[in-house]
Amino acid sequence: FLSFFLSATHPAMAKTALVILATGAEELETVAVIDVLRRGEVEVTVAGLEGRDPVKCSRGVVLLPDVALQDVATKLFHAVILPGGGGGSKRLRESALVGDILRTHMKEDMLIAAICAATTALKAHQIGQGLQVTSHPSVKQELTDTYKYSDDTRVIKDANIITSRGPGTAIEFGLLILSNLTSGEVRSSVAGPMMLFPGQ
Amino acid sequence: FLSFFLSATHPAMAKTALVILATGAEELETVAVIDVLRRGEVEVTVAGLEGRDPVKCSRGVVLLPDVALQDVATKLFHAVILPGGGGGSKRLRESALVGDILRTHMKEDMLIAAICAATTALKAHQIGQGLQVTSHPSVKQELTDTYKYSDDTRVIKDANIITSRGPGTAIEFGLLILSNLTSGEVRSSVAGPMMLFPGQ
Ligand SMILES: [Cu+]
Repeated sequence: FLSFFLSATHPAMAKTALVILATGAEELETVAVIDVLRRGEVEVTVAGLEGRDPVKCSRGVVLLPDVALQDVATKLFHAVILPGGGGGSKRLRESALVGDILRTHMKEDMLIAAICAATTALKAHQIGQGLQVTSHPSVKQELTDTYKYSDDTRVIKDANIITSRGPGTAIEFGLLILSNLTSGEVRSSVAGPMMLFPGQ
Repeated sequence: FLSFFLSATHPAMAKTALVILATGAEELETVAVIDVLRRGEVEVTVAGLEGRDPVKCSRGVVLLPDVALQDVATKLFHAVILPGGGGGSKRLRESALVGDILRTHMKEDMLIAAICAATTALKAHQIGQGLQVTSHPSVKQELTDTYKYSDDTRVIKDANIITSRGPGTAIEFGLLILSNLTSGEVRSSVAGPMMLFPGQ
């Protein structure tokens, strides 16, 4: 009984997620998804695209990454997550290492998730062409030639790709990633105490 | 005309806000309010209660404060903001310096705002007794003897005190602070691109 109890509270096979943090990332989108996943006991690694140094986000919040992306580039995670923000998304688009990581995780059928302007980084690295996606409306025009674009969903999953729209949808984005990595029950237990808007 | 244009884009009298960041603060609540206010051109100072070192938040996100609280303790801000989180709120309750800052700002009739468990720090420092407040439901019992407690509002302002409930209400909390510091038009211009839930 004791060992069952321990394994239930410390699951041996915890799910893992990689959040790729670039200078200019939208800080609220970044932190919301980390927070939601960690509340659901997902092991989240926050990896600095440019190394281990503090990362200045789009509205000046400074986040310390857990590791340099380079140092976890050969690891496989259950989910790879790209926060939005104009400057951050540009760096995600331009990084060959991000492309390599996304393609490896596609091949292994892991979850790939992008929010806001970061959906453009999926396109830049030729991930999931033809699937249903959404994004911040300001970058819609760049995506409609490559994807089935959805305007009327706040977060959407097609195959192994999850996309969402902006800071106001970031908790829902985190929760959909969480329910896919764990279960609807875990999602509910995390969402409850967070005081979401009714219907969210 | 030019000088009007410049003063409109760089207002000489920018509003200022102090966010007091303690170890164990809820990172999503902290970052949401900073993000919203900076989108609205409020000058936000993120001050580390324990100094200038990186601050580990409740779900392991590490934030770098802009300054040590000690170094801005004699400054007056248009708003003083207390993020929630169990560990962070406890430190806010126990800090005599936080009490001094809150009382000074009360005396000068500045805005004082607390979210989630941080409403308990208002009580600990004897701020706004008898006013309508809300908080995370988990600390309601500690507050009903001192305040008119509101269960059915996500964010509430009474006199110069604004309080709110949790991570899911943090953007609305930031927006109500913003509209009080600036205007309803600024609030709308900030809220629009954030992709809030309809009705939020
Ligand atoms: Cu964004």
